[in-house]
Amino acid sequence: MTAPKPSELAYVPFVSVENMMKLVHHIGIEPMLCDLSRYIEDDFRRWELFDKTPRVASHSKEGVIELMPTSDGEVYGFKYVNGHPKNTREGLQTVTAFGLLANVDTGYPVLLSEMTVLTALRTAATSAMVASHLAPQGAKTMAMIGNGAQSEFQALAMKAICGIDSLRLYDIDKAATEKAMRNLEGLGMTLTPCQTPEEAIEGAQIITTCTADKQYATILTDNMVGAGVHINAIGGDCPGKTELHKDILGRSDVFVEYPPQTRIEGEIQQMPEDFVVTEMWQVINGDVPGRVNDRQITLFDGVGFAIEDFSALRYVRDRLEDTGLYQDLDMVADPDDPRDLFGMLQRAKP
Amino acid sequence: MTAPKPSELAYVPFVSVENMMKLVHHIGIEPMLCDLSRYIEDDFRRWELFDKTPRVASHSKEGVIELMPTSDGEVYGFKYVNGHPKNTREGLQTVTAFGLLANVDTGYPVLLSEMTVLTALRTAATSAMVASHLAPQGAKTMAMIGNGAQSEFQALAMKAICGIDSLRLYDIDKAATEKAMRNLEGLGMTLTPCQTPEEAIEGAQIITTCTADKQYATILTDNMVGAGVHINAIGGDCPGKTELHKDILGRSDVFVEYPPQTRIEGEIQQMPEDFVVTEMWQVINGDVPGRVNDRQITLFDGVGFAIEDFSALRYVRDRLEDTGLYQDLDMVADPDDPRDLFGMLQRAKP
Repeated sequence: MTAPKPSELAYVPFVSVENMMKLVHHIGIEPMLCDLSRYIEDDFRRWELFDKTPRVASHSKEGVIELMPTSDGEVYGFKYVNGHPKNTREGLQTVTAFGLLANVDTGYPVLLSEMTVLTALRTAATSAMVASHLAPQGAKTMAMIGNGAQSEFQALAMKAICGIDSLRLYDIDKAATEKAMRNLEGLGMTLTPCQTPEEAIEGAQIITTCTADKQYATILTDNMVGAGVHINAIGGDCPGKTELHKDILGRSDVFVEYPPQTRIEGEIQQMPEDFVVTEMWQVINGDVPGRVNDRQITLFDGVGFAIEDFSALRYVRDRLEDTGLYQDLDMVADPDDPRDLFGMLQRAKP
Repeated sequence: MTAPKPSELAYVPFVSVENMMKLVHHIGIEPMLCDLSRYIEDDFRRWELFDKTPRVASHSKEGVIELMPTSDGEVYGFKYVNGHPKNTREGLQTVTAFGLLANVDTGYPVLLSEMTVLTALRTAATSAMVASHLAPQGAKTMAMIGNGAQSEFQALAMKAICGIDSLRLYDIDKAATEKAMRNLEGLGMTLTPCQTPEEAIEGAQIITTCTADKQYATILTDNMVGAGVHINAIGGDCPGKTELHKDILGRSDVFVEYPPQTRIEGEIQQMPEDFVVTEMWQVINGDVPGRVNDRQITLFDGVGFAIEDFSALRYVRDRLEDTGLYQDLDMVADPDDPRDLFGMLQRAKP
């Protein structure tokens, strides 16, 4: 007797890295970044609905492995993601990720997806969505400090969503800047490689810091930051890892995703626990103002929150049917009689 | 240009439900239960090494979705598992699960596996491993109260690991008992269907309660439990779900997996916070005694802990190579230059 085939319920659609890349090209990188920023903004708008918890982190000497769950009451999602700064030395990714959506009513998974590529897209889409609320009117130039794996995505998202057309690039490693320049060539932005962070921020209305060292660093010092800019600080995203001098935080209005997580992982881990921050969902909802004048320094202390992954997975799921870019995984046992798991196993005996 | 093929690092071995069932039959159910109990016992022995946390639960009206992470410092593992008692009414499983192992040094996943079947096996292997330390010498008869999806696995594990040869079955639903009898026929145990829980426990040295209703229930009342028995209470495993009258707990020596989780989810949620329990790993280590006399009632308040899933996944991983019962999943993006995720994406453009 051959093993009975799993029923339809036992299958979970799986989006591989290859299919995710096909999906991106099918839609187009910039249109997909715009779509993602809309999905993320929609979920920020209904922020209060979500089951929220700081990510569940398992730290080791070399890095961190995290689970980021959330739920809107109908759909549950989580992401598995690691952060291992020294991985690049061995030719491995600093960050790899995958994620899952499940039906809250039944607990059955409905989507499994790679999220290494998708996280890069959602992080950029989140930064640009936030900048569209906080950056000064008519911002055209962005300084991009840190030209690693996330940098090109940030650049294209800021172009597509905020209208940035000029990019000033700096990295401690010139090869990284050259790589980013190569990748962004011909994609519609003026690219200026810079020798110092000071040079990079000249004339920039948006300053993005996205470096990867797991340490307290000072990529920007206080005297470098002039009035009126928007700082998009996304590289400091775990305990002991920051990018900005704390005096900058004191002069800025700081906007965050989810305070209990950001106080542990973000730039504001340098500040006292009662340091005042604004939750981004309240700005998007119109409950509190974002940028109020053109001298103000706005600072997005972005660490990445589970709801953004949820939005990105929701988007991928919504595009599965019309693209067919998935395969079915036999991941959930589904016996004819749910109480008869053992019978199913016995009947599978060769 | 066609999409470049993912590198070897990008592949994660995946064990489907079909391959898990093949693995079970390749090894044999009882030998695999014995193997699993040894792996679990080994991990209980090095309990202090593990990164431990109560499971991360997302509760809804209909059930719960949980993530159960742990790490021994070299390998990280987690399980996704749901519990939806009303699922059976719609022909779905109450519990479905899958799990993952990853390398702590790099954060790269090394195994993805179905765990609906595997959880049934590990739960039974844990119960029997614990009973081998706590049940009275020469126990031959077990009462099996609750004859759902877990019951046959419990019976075979208690047979293979503790030498139980006689099973007395009771379920509020006669069809469940008939199903379990059918499945266990010819597998080397004397089977006695019973009309009441009282009848089921007659002459039993081990009493297993494994029912699924999400409510405070009283499957066993105090006057039903005589001296010297071992109670294996595994059905009460989430807040608001218990099986035993609290007076039984007061008369028993209670053994648990991980107190912070058991106090929330186990039978002892009915007891004050300072109710004395013994951690099972200390019994296995020889630090504290298990059963000390033949009048004592020992009670394993089993809720299922992440380390048991870790052990089970570790076992499956160890058997992959010699069986080949897996498929490779393109789940982790692995660009040639780890900082060049965007370049990998661009080169995949059709």
